[in-house]
Amino acid sequence: MPTYRAPLRDFDFVLRDFLKIDTLRHLPGFEEVTPDLIAAVLEGGGKLCEDVLFPANAPGDAKGCTYANGTVTTPTGYKDAHRAFVAGGWNGLSFAPEYGGQGLPRVLAECFGEMSMSANLAYTTYPGLAAGAAEAISKHGSPEQKATYMPKLVAGEWGGTMNLTEPHCGTDLGLIRTKAEPQADGSYRITGTKIFISAGEHDLTANIIHLVLARIVGAPAGTRGISLFIVPKFLLDADGTPGRRNGVRCGSIEHKMGIKGSATCVMNYEDATGYLLGEKHKGMRAMFTMMNSARLAVGVQGLALSEIAYQNAAHYAKERRQGRALKGAAEPDHAADPIIVHPDVRRMLLTMRAFNEGARALAAWVGLNLDLAHKHPDPRARRDADDLVALLTPVIKAYFTDFGYECVNTGQQCFGGSGYIVETGMEQFVRDARISQIYEGANGIQALDLVGRKLPQGMGRLLRQFFHPVDRFIQANANDPALADYVRPLAKSFARLQQATAWIGEQGLRDPNQAGAAASDYLKLFALVAMAYIWAQMAEVANEKLANGADDKRFYQAKLATARFFMERLLPETSSLLSKLTSGAGNLMALDAADF
Amino acid sequence: MPTYRAPLRDFDFVLRDFLKIDTLRHLPGFEEVTPDLIAAVLEGGGKLCEDVLFPANAPGDAKGCTYANGTVTTPTGYKDAHRAFVAGGWNGLSFAPEYGGQGLPRVLAECFGEMSMSANLAYTTYPGLAAGAAEAISKHGSPEQKATYMPKLVAGEWGGTMNLTEPHCGTDLGLIRTKAEPQADGSYRITGTKIFISAGEHDLTANIIHLVLARIVGAPAGTRGISLFIVPKFLLDADGTPGRRNGVRCGSIEHKMGIKGSATCVMNYEDATGYLLGEKHKGMRAMFTMMNSARLAVGVQGLALSEIAYQNAAHYAKERRQGRALKGAAEPDHAADPIIVHPDVRRMLLTMRAFNEGARALAAWVGLNLDLAHKHPDPRARRDADDLVALLTPVIKAYFTDFGYECVNTGQQCFGGSGYIVETGMEQFVRDARISQIYEGANGIQALDLVGRKLPQGMGRLLRQFFHPVDRFIQANANDPALADYVRPLAKSFARLQQATAWIGEQGLRDPNQAGAAASDYLKLFALVAMAYIWAQMAEVANEKLANGADDKRFYQAKLATARFFMERLLPETSSLLSKLTSGAGNLMALDAADF
Repeated sequence: MPTYRAPLRDFDFVLRDFLKIDTLRHLPGFEEVTPDLIAAVLEGGGKLCEDVLFPANAPGDAKGCTYANGTVTTPTGYKDAHRAFVAGGWNGLSFAPEYGGQGLPRVLAECFGEMSMSANLAYTTYPGLAAGAAEAISKHGSPEQKATYMPKLVAGEWGGTMNLTEPHCGTDLGLIRTKAEPQADGSYRITGTKIFISAGEHDLTANIIHLVLARIVGAPAGTRGISLFIVPKFLLDADGTPGRRNGVRCGSIEHKMGIKGSATCVMNYEDATGYLLGEKHKGMRAMFTMMNSARLAVGVQGLALSEIAYQNAAHYAKERRQGRALKGAAEPDHAADPIIVHPDVRRMLLTMRAFNEGARALAAWVGLNLDLAHKHPDPRARRDADDLVALLTPVIKAYFTDFGYECVNTGQQCFGGSGYIVETGMEQFVRDARISQIYEGANGIQALDLVGRKLPQGMGRLLRQFFHPVDRFIQANANDPALADYVRPLAKSFARLQQATAWIGEQGLRDPNQAGAAASDYLKLFALVAMAYIWAQMAEVANEKLANGADDKRFYQAKLATARFFMERLLPETSSLLSKLTSGAGNLMALDAADF
Repeated sequence: MPTYRAPLRDFDFVLRDFLKIDTLRHLPGFEEVTPDLIAAVLEGGGKLCEDVLFPANAPGDAKGCTYANGTVTTPTGYKDAHRAFVAGGWNGLSFAPEYGGQGLPRVLAECFGEMSMSANLAYTTYPGLAAGAAEAISKHGSPEQKATYMPKLVAGEWGGTMNLTEPHCGTDLGLIRTKAEPQADGSYRITGTKIFISAGEHDLTANIIHLVLARIVGAPAGTRGISLFIVPKFLLDADGTPGRRNGVRCGSIEHKMGIKGSATCVMNYEDATGYLLGEKHKGMRAMFTMMNSARLAVGVQGLALSEIAYQNAAHYAKERRQGRALKGAAEPDHAADPIIVHPDVRRMLLTMRAFNEGARALAAWVGLNLDLAHKHPDPRARRDADDLVALLTPVIKAYFTDFGYECVNTGQQCFGGSGYIVETGMEQFVRDARISQIYEGANGIQALDLVGRKLPQGMGRLLRQFFHPVDRFIQANANDPALADYVRPLAKSFARLQQATAWIGEQGLRDPNQAGAAASDYLKLFALVAMAYIWAQMAEVANEKLANGADDKRFYQAKLATARFFMERLLPETSSLLSKLTSGAGNLMALDAADF
């Protein structure tokens, strides 16, 4: 049976030492948010994840959701988990107090998110979608809509959904057929079928607030004719309580590879009453605000599952005795040595560890910038932070989930044959992690978003929010011998990223297929450089701590060892990525479609 | 629902054009084996795979095996499949006619193996293990043992197993506790528990011949005290028919991530009657003859699942319409273009295709060398061929299954959300493929086998069987402008491989941890160069065919396009692999085990 421990020590390092999180207190509304408060919140959150969410994880996979006559029953343990989640106010962690939220920083919600998704990814889809719906309503809703829906969604007492996909369209939402007919009272009648709707129906909440993309009758074709609607499962009575059932019904749930405790629903809308959210025909834009934070959260899923896979693999490698160290018996009193004596087992563990710790810090940096983008008094600083978040969102979504999936598989590999057996739990992590590469925009789409939208945006304005600080860091530390082993590889890989960026700028302008052909390799190259930038800074912090005689010497020494591993064993891939992407589109486009 | 088509056209290319398979007829016993006969056999085999094995694949996954009171029931359809398999003589394809086999070349059995494992991997474990047991008995059995067991195993009328693993030992078989007590009649009483025994119990055959590793009472400790025993499920009556039940019983079956139609058994031996196979205390060596061909077969599983994943992904990419080509609508009459217009979708498909076609040819080359090793009249030629097979076995086992698994996941990715749904079939391929990286020696063990055993063996004698022909090919074609785009990258990556080999030779001698730290990256580097060597030769063949006005022009043009893709988009990884492996063991061994 697998175990889970909240990585509180590492969160403390990331927030306090690396991000210097006490600077958050300069932002309006965060005056009371001390590093100690943050640590206490994470400790409480970690306890919920370890003691309540995690125990429901494996049973939830074994049982899955069940469907009958339009209703969905979640697995045993989910209702209790949700009660505890709501009671602790975890759903509203970073929502404004005016809606019943705790008003805490988003970076904190991001860290809690990692833990909850490590502990029980399938369950977190329910509160996650409620929070997503709340965010969309908070940004695009009328004052009345906010008052009506926000408190319940923020509390987690009601669920929420995002209804985009239809059988014939996923990525290409311009093809949406679900229609909205205007009614005399200002509402709309929604009719159509949506598929792959996470948390579309379940037994955890008294109501479910569906956000539905549909085309108002007579609207222009394509994405410019799509609007967003609020469609509650139960229409609200005058006093705001759920009353009459609306014309929306779950037709079936999917049988999936993993996240079996998360209901993936076919939703049938038949003359359902819907209320326009935001402006007519501007539904795509409104939905994107929801999708961007969802993409960051999905990225963190890759980290979350890699973390729990690492914890269990490391534990197993220290316990499992098999064979002898290559240099001779390490523990001659035992019949065999623990397999962690083997360099190749350590290579697997360090791959996961270097990813997890680097990704955790990178995600927290982006989380901090989300707070700056929302709260900083200076509009220029808000825009800068927002630019950085926009730039890194597709990078985090795709790289964290692709490499996180590799890491989860690596953790499973450390177990040998036992890793393939259900009871060990590792194979569930693999099956659960797999979806994160697919949903919220498959990773190939993220790469196109980076190359096709984020790079050219504002004549490279977004890019500068990342390139400039990296450049400054390299300049500032180029001559520090204590950092040379980290800064030199960073500089080398950053040069490759600059070269790749210039290549795409030049070639892609002439032929968009060149940019498309380079996109996935470019995203990975970008991500590795971002990770190297984070690791080099963490090495700097660890050096300082050790120089200042920190108590927890071994922790900082391990940081340096892991930083070195990252630079020497993961970062070198940037060289082959550059070769691949500059080989051009010719080798992809030559073959006729019929010859595939 | 997925589909499967036997890749007969490509087999024809590999066998006839690339391997010049008609040279096989110079080997004694293969005088009648014409290329046309081979093609006819593969066509018949392909039909069985398409029409009988494949239809039982998805239902077998859904139902799995069931266990009750020591018996195992295989999924619906497996019995019919097995009847057809036995009736067609497919189990004995390359076994000697004296045992009822068809006496056909091993390379042919290897090609048929790919198809059957594409069609239904879980099912093939049953005949596969019968064939493995037959091979071990044919090599190590007494004349009487051969006469008793071979015909039934070769026919597939009886099943077979390999019993190695025990709860406390998998890789480290020196720890085996199962004991064998000599009896007055020359037999042994076997007592112990074995786990993870594929096909250990089932309802497909009238008897199951277990090959069991055990320690004769009083034998030396470690692997040098282990012997191999034949333990039939039913002891044979005087006339050779299964009679009294032996003291072996299946205690339970495992719940696994995939290959659910393959029973993975806990086998309890209690005073079971066993017969020594081969010499006392030489059981490990005997088992290894079985394991080596099993390792090749497991390698081909990675290819087999990548092939079926590719076929379905390519089909989907041509059918699924979503969005527009980056350069503007490719098919303006439709609401959207098929997604195969996108360079990134093509990158995914070509990755799978370049792997599949290269791996198929590489596996067939090794299969041909198996035939040469067994049948060539010149002992030196036999040894050379055997050396090449021994060298490439761990490379194929680990690289084909690691990269094959990546490809199966890539195929699933092409489907977007639908790929995560059970009914599409792609997720089963992922779950089934995963085991091949783990069983028959986890891939990290394969890397150690390559670096620790195969490289130093005979002072590099094995290595020369690969390095010399690659070198000769590069020399011979260095100045051919028509081949420059293939030979130049091959030469560059081969130089990297030579550099890495020298590094390991030098560093590994001083410190075995250096070799261990380099092993996995070295194996992948080796595999990429082997694939490049195969692809460059296939490009040469395709060039010749086109120059000679071949009818099937598009087929050969597609070969060239795929060869180019391999050279420009997969082979460049050799540069980063070289950097990684020459970074040394320091970055792996620095961290104390307790700090993981």
